[in-house]
Amino acid sequence: MDRRNVHFALVLAYHGPGFRGWQFQEGQPTVEGSLRKAAAPLFQGPFRCRAAGRTDAGVHARDQRVLLAGPCEHSADTLAKALNARLCEGIAVLQCREVGPDWDPKSGSFAKSYRYQVWRGPYLPPVLHDRVWWIQGRGALSQTAIEAAAAHLRGEQDYDSFRSAHCQARHARRCIWQLDFRPEETAAILAHPDERCALASFTVTGNAFCQHQVRIMVGTLVEVGLGKREAASIPGILEAKDRQAAGRTAPAQGLTLQRVYFPGEEALSGVPSDARWPGCPWD
Amino acid sequence: MDRRNVHFALVLAYHGPGFRGWQFQEGQPTVEGSLRKAAAPLFQGPFRCRAAGRTDAGVHARDQRVLLAGPCEHSADTLAKALNARLCEGIAVLQCREVGPDWDPKSGSFAKSYRYQVWRGPYLPPVLHDRVWWIQGRGALSQTAIEAAAAHLRGEQDYDSFRSAHCQARHARRCIWQLDFRPEETAAILAHPDERCALASFTVTGNAFCQHQVRIMVGTLVEVGLGKREAASIPGILEAKDRQAAGRTAPAQGLTLQRVYFPGEEALSGVPSDARWPGCPWD
Repeated sequence: MDRRNVHFALVLAYHGPGFRGWQFQEGQPTVEGSLRKAAAPLFQGPFRCRAAGRTDAGVHARDQRVLLAGPCEHSADTLAKALNARLCEGIAVLQCREVGPDWDPKSGSFAKSYRYQVWRGPYLPPVLHDRVWWIQGRGALSQTAIEAAAAHLRGEQDYDSFRSAHCQARHARRCIWQLDFRPEETAAILAHPDERCALASFTVTGNAFCQHQVRIMVGTLVEVGLGKREAASIPGILEAKDRQAAGRTAPAQGLTLQRVYFPGEEALSGVPSDARWPGCPWD
Repeated sequence: MDRRNVHFALVLAYHGPGFRGWQFQEGQPTVEGSLRKAAAPLFQGPFRCRAAGRTDAGVHARDQRVLLAGPCEHSADTLAKALNARLCEGIAVLQCREVGPDWDPKSGSFAKSYRYQVWRGPYLPPVLHDRVWWIQGRGALSQTAIEAAAAHLRGEQDYDSFRSAHCQARHARRCIWQLDFRPEETAAILAHPDERCALASFTVTGNAFCQHQVRIMVGTLVEVGLGKREAASIPGILEAKDRQAAGRTAPAQGLTLQRVYFPGEEALSGVPSDARWPGCPWD
């Protein structure tokens, strides 16, 4: 019997509402817990399971990267099929390949993109249930105001005001290269496209993120888009280094971990080639 | 108190899996049952509830049309708000307006469009769960073969082979003007667009449909796309007037009632202006 120790790199997608987030918690449905349970009979002994990043309860992923490493007789293809057959409906292994022993989904990636979807209107189309933040009301969010505010949130800076009070990171210095707000097509959702309703999404790409950072940035930008807060107030919020200065935490169901970037994918990531930060892959 | 009898035309959207279809069934969660329950306290007496067409259990709608008629003190806007506040998560009233006493969602409409989504690949992305027919495997469905077969299913003809054995319509003569099969964009779904996976949709527009007609047509066309059946076999299936001659019934969760067309919307409907059929609005 071939008892070699194998390292597998997985691309995992999941629909958030079925899980109490990524991280294993005894007796709770979590993504890590479900994956470990599905993988256990496919390894001949203890194995490691490690993700590129934790996601909160209710947050979706279309590109979570996971290392599964341990004694295994299966090929990557067989493992992927067997995992998909054993996983519950809300999770799927999209890719699985064998990697070297040094591959690490967290320290090996140089950037992550998140997408946050918001729906503005007097009602929520059922097809969007569980997938957006429904900002009830009429009248579009101001794209101009949001873009002006977002400009202050890009760059390398201290995001202390934009992280959860429970964030355990040693510091909140992060690089955000992309923070865009764009209207999305609603033709496939609305029978009769209605100007009082709008779907839009934020795309955020950075080297790393503090706990709830994307959700607090989005919550604050939406307040700007609704005219409840000035775009010019953002620099003051950053300077305050105080969670209370920023806006509300946007709800989890609007957020998707969209892509994790590894060296060799610099061009795809949209990270400018002159960007420099600690751990920059082109340094 | 104003006890006038009012007729309201509603545009209703719903997500299928939560309901045992449109039609009221005692003790079962149905769309009609949920709507009646939400509407009851908003009318001052018995009221009528009638849809443009029934949908099966699991089928979605983004544009079901419904008549609510009875003694009511509320304006159309207030009724819509009150209904949305009382309806469960899977249903929403997208529009509500007062209409004349002759308006009827079924006999008053001249065409309906359905959309049927299929996903071909070795796995099902969680975001598509409940929304597509997952045709497990690798290798694309043949668009050429499906188009050749679909050509035989357009026109005014007898669809006896393409209706459920339980269909209660007196005959199966119907007009299908549009039956298209098109690949859809997968960039928002897949982290790394993968040629072995494909999303595609059928769009079907006709004057009326027999029970399960769209689902049996799609089931048969998918068999053609997989090479299990010849495109040239379709005329023989139509001639057989026998349900056993056609393919399987595609599962409900891929189907959406996409739009119901009323006189004045002929140009939008894509129905050719020289089309003629019983009840044609431009006759």
